[in-house]
Amino acid sequence: MWSNSIGKAFVVTCFGESHGPGVGVTIDGCPAGLPLEPEDIQVALELRIPQDKDVVSARREPDDVEIFSGVFQHHTTGAPITLHLRNKDTRPADYESLKDVVRPGHADYPAKVKYGGFNDYRGGGRLSGRMTAAFLAAGAVATKLLQNKGVQVLAYTLAIGGVGLEDSPDADVAKKMTYSNSMRCPDETVADKMRKVVLAAREDGDSVGGIVECMVLNLPVGVGEPIFDALDAELAKIIFGIPAVKGVEFGAGFHAARLKGSQNNDQYVIIEGRVSTVTNNSGGVLGGMSTGMPLLLRVAFKPPSSIAKEQKTVNVSKMEEATLGVKGRHDPCVVPKAVPVVQGMVAIGIADLMIRGGMIPRVLQS
Amino acid sequence: MWSNSIGKAFVVTCFGESHGPGVGVTIDGCPAGLPLEPEDIQVALELRIPQDKDVVSARREPDDVEIFSGVFQHHTTGAPITLHLRNKDTRPADYESLKDVVRPGHADYPAKVKYGGFNDYRGGGRLSGRMTAAFLAAGAVATKLLQNKGVQVLAYTLAIGGVGLEDSPDADVAKKMTYSNSMRCPDETVADKMRKVVLAAREDGDSVGGIVECMVLNLPVGVGEPIFDALDAELAKIIFGIPAVKGVEFGAGFHAARLKGSQNNDQYVIIEGRVSTVTNNSGGVLGGMSTGMPLLLRVAFKPPSSIAKEQKTVNVSKMEEATLGVKGRHDPCVVPKAVPVVQGMVAIGIADLMIRGGMIPRVLQS
Amino acid sequence: MWSNSIGKAFVVTCFGESHGPGVGVTIDGCPAGLPLEPEDIQVALELRIPQDKDVVSARREPDDVEIFSGVFQHHTTGAPITLHLRNKDTRPADYESLKDVVRPGHADYPAKVKYGGFNDYRGGGRLSGRMTAAFLAAGAVATKLLQNKGVQVLAYTLAIGGVGLEDSPDADVAKKMTYSNSMRCPDETVADKMRKVVLAAREDGDSVGGIVECMVLNLPVGVGEPIFDALDAELAKIIFGIPAVKGVEFGAGFHAARLKGSQNNDQYVIIEGRVSTVTNNSGGVLGGMSTGMPLLLRVAFKPPSSIAKEQKTVNVSKMEEATLGVKGRHDPCVVPKAVPVVQGMVAIGIADLMIRGGMIPRVLQS
Amino acid sequence: MWSNSIGKAFVVTCFGESHGPGVGVTIDGCPAGLPLEPEDIQVALELRIPQDKDVVSARREPDDVEIFSGVFQHHTTGAPITLHLRNKDTRPADYESLKDVVRPGHADYPAKVKYGGFNDYRGGGRLSGRMTAAFLAAGAVATKLLQNKGVQVLAYTLAIGGVGLEDSPDADVAKKMTYSNSMRCPDETVADKMRKVVLAAREDGDSVGGIVECMVLNLPVGVGEPIFDALDAELAKIIFGIPAVKGVEFGAGFHAARLKGSQNNDQYVIIEGRVSTVTNNSGGVLGGMSTGMPLLLRVAFKPPSSIAKEQKTVNVSKMEEATLGVKGRHDPCVVPKAVPVVQGMVAIGIADLMIRGGMIPRVLQS
Repeated sequence: MWSNSIGKAFVVTCFGESHGPGVGVTIDGCPAGLPLEPEDIQVALELRIPQDKDVVSARREPDDVEIFSGVFQHHTTGAPITLHLRNKDTRPADYESLKDVVRPGHADYPAKVKYGGFNDYRGGGRLSGRMTAAFLAAGAVATKLLQNKGVQVLAYTLAIGGVGLEDSPDADVAKKMTYSNSMRCPDETVADKMRKVVLAAREDGDSVGGIVECMVLNLPVGVGEPIFDALDAELAKIIFGIPAVKGVEFGAGFHAARLKGSQNNDQYVIIEGRVSTVTNNSGGVLGGMSTGMPLLLRVAFKPPSSIAKEQKTVNVSKMEEATLGVKGRHDPCVVPKAVPVVQGMVAIGIADLMIRGGMIPRVLQS
Repeated sequence: MWSNSIGKAFVVTCFGESHGPGVGVTIDGCPAGLPLEPEDIQVALELRIPQDKDVVSARREPDDVEIFSGVFQHHTTGAPITLHLRNKDTRPADYESLKDVVRPGHADYPAKVKYGGFNDYRGGGRLSGRMTAAFLAAGAVATKLLQNKGVQVLAYTLAIGGVGLEDSPDADVAKKMTYSNSMRCPDETVADKMRKVVLAAREDGDSVGGIVECMVLNLPVGVGEPIFDALDAELAKIIFGIPAVKGVEFGAGFHAARLKGSQNNDQYVIIEGRVSTVTNNSGGVLGGMSTGMPLLLRVAFKPPSSIAKEQKTVNVSKMEEATLGVKGRHDPCVVPKAVPVVQGMVAIGIADLMIRGGMIPRVLQS
Repeated sequence: MWSNSIGKAFVVTCFGESHGPGVGVTIDGCPAGLPLEPEDIQVALELRIPQDKDVVSARREPDDVEIFSGVFQHHTTGAPITLHLRNKDTRPADYESLKDVVRPGHADYPAKVKYGGFNDYRGGGRLSGRMTAAFLAAGAVATKLLQNKGVQVLAYTLAIGGVGLEDSPDADVAKKMTYSNSMRCPDETVADKMRKVVLAAREDGDSVGGIVECMVLNLPVGVGEPIFDALDAELAKIIFGIPAVKGVEFGAGFHAARLKGSQNNDQYVIIEGRVSTVTNNSGGVLGGMSTGMPLLLRVAFKPPSSIAKEQKTVNVSKMEEATLGVKGRHDPCVVPKAVPVVQGMVAIGIADLMIRGGMIPRVLQS
Repeated sequence: MWSNSIGKAFVVTCFGESHGPGVGVTIDGCPAGLPLEPEDIQVALELRIPQDKDVVSARREPDDVEIFSGVFQHHTTGAPITLHLRNKDTRPADYESLKDVVRPGHADYPAKVKYGGFNDYRGGGRLSGRMTAAFLAAGAVATKLLQNKGVQVLAYTLAIGGVGLEDSPDADVAKKMTYSNSMRCPDETVADKMRKVVLAAREDGDSVGGIVECMVLNLPVGVGEPIFDALDAELAKIIFGIPAVKGVEFGAGFHAARLKGSQNNDQYVIIEGRVSTVTNNSGGVLGGMSTGMPLLLRVAFKPPSSIAKEQKTVNVSKMEEATLGVKGRHDPCVVPKAVPVVQGMVAIGIADLMIRGGMIPRVLQS
C-alpha cells in the first residue's frame, strides 16, 4: 500500500530499481519561483561518490539528471517536479544466482515473502542503496529551498568502525573540511585513520559500519508539528528510509539516559538579545519543535551486508542450507556515501515542516 | 497543520490537554468484530502508574475511560472508536507563574513562539506527559487486535540512570516479571538498584533518565511498507511522539556502527523447517520489513525536565533572565510510566502495518 | 480503513452514531488565535432544526456542544479541537425489528454486508443523518475562520419536489431571507409552495427531494490545489459525505453540456480596476481554482428513504422477501435541514484550501 | 501544497506539462503479480483519439509509453509503477502571445495569480487536457487490476450539445458499440446526429459540450469507505480532476430532487438467490457503498474554451481590455476523448477502494 511518499507539504515520491531503467523522484508541493537548473542537482549527486576508488564499489553511474516536469524558464512553477536518473552501469546477470539464495543482512528474504516472489531481486531491486541517488536529487531541491531562507544543513562522518571524532566539530570547520577527504570527516587526521579501517575491512573481504552526524543551522524557532509530526519524529522516519540505518538520536541521545535532569536540562540565557541556552543537550528540539539552537542528530549505519567472506544462508526455494560469499561490486563502508544522503534527507524533512509551519511561502519572491 | 494523527490504516488521532477537560483518542480503521470492553482499556491505563508512591508524581487521575463511539454489542463496528479520559486532579493555578518564565528542558519556549502565545501553557498543555494516558488507551485496542493474531508486544525497563540489565531478558521472564516491581524491570535485583537511583535523584531535587527496550514476538515475515513506511521508520516516528524520547535504535543499533559485516550479518539457517537466523543483530527488521525473528528496539528517555533544583531561565515577555526551581508534582523518572506507553505505541504501529499488509482483515471472524 | 477524516490542513475527523452516546468531531489544524465560544457553535446547530414542527421529524436533540479540547482563554490554541454532542432523545428499540429487514433506500444492506453484521444498525448508526449535527459543529468553526478573512458562505433551498426558484437569488436577499421560513428559501412565496409540497408528501406517508444552492462571496483568486485537490473536486467530495446527496454541479453545471463555447465562456472585462467576467457560467472556478467571481454550486438531495408507505424489501438473514412501512420519527424532506449543513461543509472545504494556499496564516492576529 | 496524488491504497501521482518534456504518472500501491506490458497501456491510449480527423484537434502525439519502474519479468512487483509519455508534437511558440492575454474559460487567469506568474502557460501547461493521456495510462493499469476481479467499467457518450440517448444503453450494447464511431456513442444513429452538431460548431469557430455516462458491472457489495471516502465521494473527486467537468451525478441524480420517496426508493427483491432491487435510482450506491447493482454515474462536460470566435478578454499585465480568437489546434468537443478518460478515472477510484476494502489482495495469484 501507498508507502513511497514522504512529507505532507513538500512531498517526495520515489520510484525505480537498481537494475531497471532507472530511479527517480517526484516532488509535489515545492513553492513556485525557486531558481532551479540541472546543475544544482548534479553537484549534489557528485558528492555521493568519493573519487578515491579504493573505498567504494566499482559501479559507476554518470547520473545525468533529467528534469522532466515542474520547471519552466529556469524556475519552479508550483507543479510537481519529476527528476530521472537512468541506470547505465547495470549487471543484472550478477544476481541471477541470488534469486533463491538470500543474502544475509539484505532484505532479500522478507521481500521475497512479502511480494510473493514478484519482487525485482536484482541487486536488491527496489531496496537497493541505488535509491539514495534519487533521494539526493530531491534533497538538492530541498537544500536550495532552505538556502533561500538561510537555513543550512551540514552532515559529516563522526565515526567509522569505532574510530571517530571525540566531539561535534565546529560548524565552520565542518563546512570547509567535510569533503576534503574520501571519508567525509571534517578532521583529516581522523579521516586517515578511518580510511585505514575501511581498507583493512575490504582487504579482509569484510565491511565496517559508522555514524553520521548532522547539524542544521539558522533554523527558526517552532519548526515541527506536534504531536506526531514533531521535528524529531519526522526526521527519524525519513532517515530510517535510508538503507542500513539502525539508530537515530538527537542531542545527548542515548547518553541522556545516563544523565540527571540538572545535567541534561539546557538552561536559558539571553545572548545578544535572543533567548539561547547554555548547553544544547536537547539537540535543538523540545516538544517536537526547534528551539532556535542548532539541530543536532546522529545516525548509526550498520556495516554493508554484501561481503566476500563466506556466510551461512538458505536457498528458500529448495529450503536447504547453503553458503554464500557475495561476489561482484560492493562498498566496504557506506558511511562516506551516506553523508550527503543524510544531509539531503534532513533537508527534505525540514523543507516540508517549514512549509507546513508557514515559514516558507507558496510563491517565492522573484 | 494536521499533525495529531498517526497511521494510514489504523489511524489514531489524539486530542486534549493536561489541565483542560480531558484527553482522548479516535481510532479510525479498527476492523469490525473485535470484542472490546472498557475494562480492556482500564487494565492498560492502570499499568502506567506504579503503586509505589515514592517513585512517581503525586498527581492521581482515576482514568475512567468512556467509549464514546464505535463499539456496539461489545464489539467494534468498523466505525471510528473515540475514547475519553476526563482530567480530574488538575491544578491549573500551579502554572500561572510559568506563563512567561519558560521551564528549561520543556517545550514552553518553542510552543509560545510557534503558537503566538495562544498555547495552553498549564502543565505543558497539549505537550504534557498526560497525553500518554490517551496513547495507552489507543494502545490497548491495538494490543487486543494483535492478540487476535497471536502477536505479542513486550516492553520493559532496560536501564535507569546508568544502572541496567546487561542483556535483553528472556521473553518469558519479561512477560512474567516486568510488572512485579515499580521499576518495570524484569530482574528484581536490578530493579532494586534502579529504585535507589530514582529515590536518590528525588531526594536531591533532581531526576534521572533511562532506556526502555521492547520486543515483538510472533510477527509474520513482511510487516512494514518500504520505502518510507518501513517497519523501523514507522515505529521510530510513533515513538518520538512520546514525550522525553531522545533516541531509537533497532537490534544492534548504535553498536552496529562499531561492528564488521561478518560480525553483524545474521546468517540464515533452517530451524524446525523454518528460515531463521543464528543471531538477531538486525532486531528482526531488514529493508524495513519484519524478518520473522523477534523485533527488538530500544528507546532512550531523558531525565524529566521538571526538577526542584534551581536553574537559570528567561522571562520571555520581559526578556530578562530569571531562576526557577519547578514546584508542584512531578516524576523523578518517567521510565517506569513509559514502559506500557512504548508497548502501546509499538502495538499501534504494528497494527497499522499489519492491516496495510493485508495480515489483519477488515472484519474479524465472529 | 481510515476514511472518517476530510481535508489536509484543516482536517475534520468525525465519529459517533445515531443512537449511541453521541456524535462529535475533531478539527486538527485550526490556526491559533481564533476567538471561539460554545455559543458560536450552538447558533449553527440551531439553524438545522426549523421551529415549524410540521415539516420535520419529531426527534429533538438539545445539542449542547462541549468543547473538549483545543480552546484556552476563549481562543483556539492550534491544538486539535474536539466537539461533542451527546445523544439524548434516542429510541434504539424502534430499530430492533429492522436488524435483518433492510430499509429500501437506506444503507442498511451494504453496511451489513461490508461490516460483517457488526455495524450499529440502530437508525442507520454511523450512517445516519444525525451525523450532520457534528458536521455543523465543525462547519461553525470553519465559518468563523472564514469570516476572519471576509469570506462568506450562503446556502439556501433552490427547489423542493419540482417547486423552485427560477434563478439564483441576489446575495443580499439570500443573506436576509433564507432563515425567515421553515423551507430555508429566500423567496417567501416560493417557500409557501414548497411547504405545501412537503406537507402533502407527509400526509401521504411519502417524502420529497430537492436542491440546495450555495454561493461563496469574497473568495480570493486561486483557492484550490490542482490537479486532484481542485476547488470543485474537494467540495464535491466533502458534499457527497452528506447523506442523501445524489449530484453536485458548479456554475452552469449539467446545463453547460447543452451550450456552445461562445455561450458558456465567461468573457473577461475590467470593472473598478479588477479583472472580472461578464457572466459566471464557470460558477467561479476554472482549472480547479477560484476566479474571484462568486463560487456557485448546486446539490441534489433525494427524497428521504424512510416513508410510512409499504414497500417491498428482504429479510437478509432469512433471505426471504418482506414488506415494510417505516414507522417512527422521520423527515418528509431533508432539504431545509440540509441548507446549513451544505453551508458548513463548504466552509470546511474552503477553510482547508485557504490554509493550504497560504491565505490563512497559522496564527491569527490577536 | 501536495495535491497531485489521488487515492490512499492505489495512489496515482501525476506530473508533466502540455509543452514540456512530457507527462506521466506514478502508481504506488498496485498489488504485486499483475501481468503488465506496455501494450496494455498503449491500447488504452489509442482509444482517446478518434481516427476521424474532422472532429478532433490536429495535435498528434504518438504516445509511446515507457514503463520506467515497478514491472519485472512482465509482472508488477509491488513497487511504484512510473509511466512516461514524451511530448513530441509541441508548438510552444503558439502560446507566447497568450502569456498575458488570458483565454476566457481557461485557467490562465487564476493560475497566473496563484503561482505568481511562474506557471507554465504554454497550452495551459500543467492544467492542459494533455494531462488526460497520463490519466489514461494509470487507468489502464487499474482496468487490468479490476478485470482480474471480474469488474468492468464502461463509459460512453450520452449526449453532445443537446443531442443524446433517451435512456442508458444495455451494457452489452455499450460494450460492443461505443467505439464503433468517433462520437463514442453506443447508438450509431444518435452518433451521426452528434457528429453533425460537432462539425457545425467547428465550422462556426465554436465548440459544444456533452455528457458522459459510466456504468460499473459486477462490483461486489460494500465498495466504498464511509463517511468521507464514500464510493460516490471518491469518484466525484477524481472525476472533477478531469478538465472541463462541471457536474457529477449518480443514479437518478438531479432528477431525484423532483421525485417522491415512493418513486425513488429501490425496493428489494430476491432474484436467483441474491438480494437485488427492482429499480436502480440509487445508481448502485447507498450510504457511500456499492449495493451490488450496477454503478451508474453521469458527468457533464462544458464546451471547450478555446474557440476561434472573437471574445472579450483582458491583458492582465497591462490591465487593459482586449479581444481574442484562439488560434491553433483545438477540439470542437472534448466528449469523445473524455469517454475513455472517465472510464480510466473511475477504474482508478474503484481499484483504490477495492484494495482498501480488502477485496483485492496485496499479492495476486501467479
